[in-house]
Amino acid sequence: MSRNRHITAPAGFSAAGVACGIKQSGLNDLAIVAADKDASAAIVTTRNQIVGAPIIWCREILPRGYGHVRAMVINSGNSNVCTGKAGFKDAQAMAAQTAGLIGTTLEKILVASTGIIGHRLPMENVRAGIAGAAGKLTAGKDSQAISAIMTTDTAEKFAVEKFKIGSKEVTIGGMVKGAGMIAPSMATMIAVITTDAAITPAVAHKALSAAVRTTFNAVTIDSDTSTSDIVALLAGGKAGNKTITAGSSDFKTFTAKLTKLCESLAHQMAADGEGAGKLVSITVKAARNDGEAEIAAKSIANSPLVKCAIHGADPNWGRIVMAIGKSAAKVDQDKLTVKIGGVSVFSRGMVRAFDAKQVSKHLAGKEVQIECNLGLGKGKFTALTCDLSAEYVSINADYHT
Amino acid sequence: MSRNRHITAPAGFSAAGVACGIKQSGLNDLAIVAADKDASAAIVTTRNQIVGAPIIWCREILPRGYGHVRAMVINSGNSNVCTGKAGFKDAQAMAAQTAGLIGTTLEKILVASTGIIGHRLPMENVRAGIAGAAGKLTAGKDSQAISAIMTTDTAEKFAVEKFKIGSKEVTIGGMVKGAGMIAPSMATMIAVITTDAAITPAVAHKALSAAVRTTFNAVTIDSDTSTSDIVALLAGGKAGNKTITAGSSDFKTFTAKLTKLCESLAHQMAADGEGAGKLVSITVKAARNDGEAEIAAKSIANSPLVKCAIHGADPNWGRIVMAIGKSAAKVDQDKLTVKIGGVSVFSRGMVRAFDAKQVSKHLAGKEVQIECNLGLGKGKFTALTCDLSAEYVSINADYHT
Repeated sequence: MSRNRHITAPAGFSAAGVACGIKQSGLNDLAIVAADKDASAAIVTTRNQIVGAPIIWCREILPRGYGHVRAMVINSGNSNVCTGKAGFKDAQAMAAQTAGLIGTTLEKILVASTGIIGHRLPMENVRAGIAGAAGKLTAGKDSQAISAIMTTDTAEKFAVEKFKIGSKEVTIGGMVKGAGMIAPSMATMIAVITTDAAITPAVAHKALSAAVRTTFNAVTIDSDTSTSDIVALLAGGKAGNKTITAGSSDFKTFTAKLTKLCESLAHQMAADGEGAGKLVSITVKAARNDGEAEIAAKSIANSPLVKCAIHGADPNWGRIVMAIGKSAAKVDQDKLTVKIGGVSVFSRGMVRAFDAKQVSKHLAGKEVQIECNLGLGKGKFTALTCDLSAEYVSINADYHT
Repeated sequence: MSRNRHITAPAGFSAAGVACGIKQSGLNDLAIVAADKDASAAIVTTRNQIVGAPIIWCREILPRGYGHVRAMVINSGNSNVCTGKAGFKDAQAMAAQTAGLIGTTLEKILVASTGIIGHRLPMENVRAGIAGAAGKLTAGKDSQAISAIMTTDTAEKFAVEKFKIGSKEVTIGGMVKGAGMIAPSMATMIAVITTDAAITPAVAHKALSAAVRTTFNAVTIDSDTSTSDIVALLAGGKAGNKTITAGSSDFKTFTAKLTKLCESLAHQMAADGEGAGKLVSITVKAARNDGEAEIAAKSIANSPLVKCAIHGADPNWGRIVMAIGKSAAKVDQDKLTVKIGGVSVFSRGMVRAFDAKQVSKHLAGKEVQIECNLGLGKGKFTALTCDLSAEYVSINADYHT
């Protein structure tokens, strides 16, 4: 997997990123990802009730969450949130300019923004950036698009999947930014996924929704939810496969590979959580149902006390038990079993004799696994998070807006 | 208000605290608060589904949350949680020994424990402690009871209210411990409130439940909920007032004063949150109803990003808007107004021009006020919390179980 080939790994896509001065640092801050022709498109957006102008725009052009799209324009450094009607017009203007430069109409352009909130976009810079990026769109390589969407991210996060649909090789590529729900004022997860698979918009949306539930929606850095989160899938169809229909075996294959790609991106995002030193996966098994498993897993993943204990490599199973018990998921202490790094530490209401040094050693590593068996049913969910460090506090307290 | 007179300020109560070696530090760790005769009693306990043996015991003797009680025995240093049937027998044994020494039966004794979890109580020490405390019970002074219930608390937290019911002077006194939901493994809020008012158990429970909702239940240090939380009210009746009945004007007076006392204790607790430098009160007004106001206020109060911003004195109103938007309470960005320290920073969907230095100065103080008007109805709630500091992480990460 080449660093320069992810969103442009599938045939039929080009990309570019430029620096246009939205970020004071002078780093890249505007990217365009474009399909050669109209692509089947699906989006999943934030559940926050307060949303930025770009999200309002994307929902307006894809009211059912899917349709046809030609390109996506993304800026970092300013999220265009809480900017009123003028901000909406700015988002629309970004779509219109991009459309004009690549030869389509404005309702075929998705827009995403991430960065500080409550400030109008510097539209002169944005216009220069769009012109610059459109002018250097390159097929087959990233062309700095990924660096242009990053904010507090400390690493580029991307993934590629290749597989067969019938006799045709299909490729899915994706990139994501996000490292906490803030950067610098309130940040965002933006994922752009491209594929050359032939698939209708509605079926693409079905596949994307399924993939997001257990991957991006399983990640919680700090329980906070951005006003600008968006995952977009563009499917250009150049692979030449028979169009994927809902419920077919091809659909299952495509969804499984899309899920695998999203899982990789989600893992990279959790591991790059602000101030994080560890990737923590928390699996809840045998809940009454999948929904309760998710509630319990996220209650543990969002507990500051659990996350501090993991940061300190402290085998403090009591905090895990507390975090399950406070959740809305049904739990019975006498049926509950907790494992840390595969070692059983609590079993059916009682602490187990365990090797604390062994468990501490696991917690001191870069990847931490916690598993809770509720003993009540068949529900299962794995949440992804990171540890809570003093550095997280310092990133989010010492920065001044 | 004397440091030595709070739970013993009402006539008819005695107290004592001793060190019996449950805490390795050698500090006080066992207290008894006793009424001269059976008192009307009401308790409110944790909502966590996983509870310690003492909570199970208290619920067993007061299945409806109220009844008659003679005394309460409390230890710190070990919470007797996740200790199975043997742990329950230990709690029962504490009640039985206390009952024997003060001349009543075991089902008249409330038990509370706070401290590490998953370890059996050192019963030899506990027995010596109960004997010692029962032997030095003193009327009219605290006699070290308050220090014996503290864990990571950095200050003694107590309050007294005096007022008239009819022609009779009535006194309510209370003490509380709690400074985060952990100390050292998982901690607890324990409040003991005494009064000489004459009131039936059921009416006392009604008053206590009303008082707790807007006071103790408004406090959130870190969104975590202990397995051992308990608030107990003992009413001895020595004031000689006409017994308070539900719905009467005396009931309203008593409940208002009890609420005022609980509010003082809750403020003291929030201000002493682990690693906290500030007491933060977050008022949500004009929600669709009180329940939604509470949800929105607590979403802000539990947001690590909001709490970090307050710690850094950063007037980052965007995080407040984000935290309301992600909550389950209905919010309309175009009707939302946010004030920090009385200064309007966001109004009906748009940022306001405001003096950032003035707002930063307010945030840099010891008491921070945030007010959000949702513009939707008449619901109101004030949540109490503290800032999130690197010290919180260090208290909770560097301590090893």
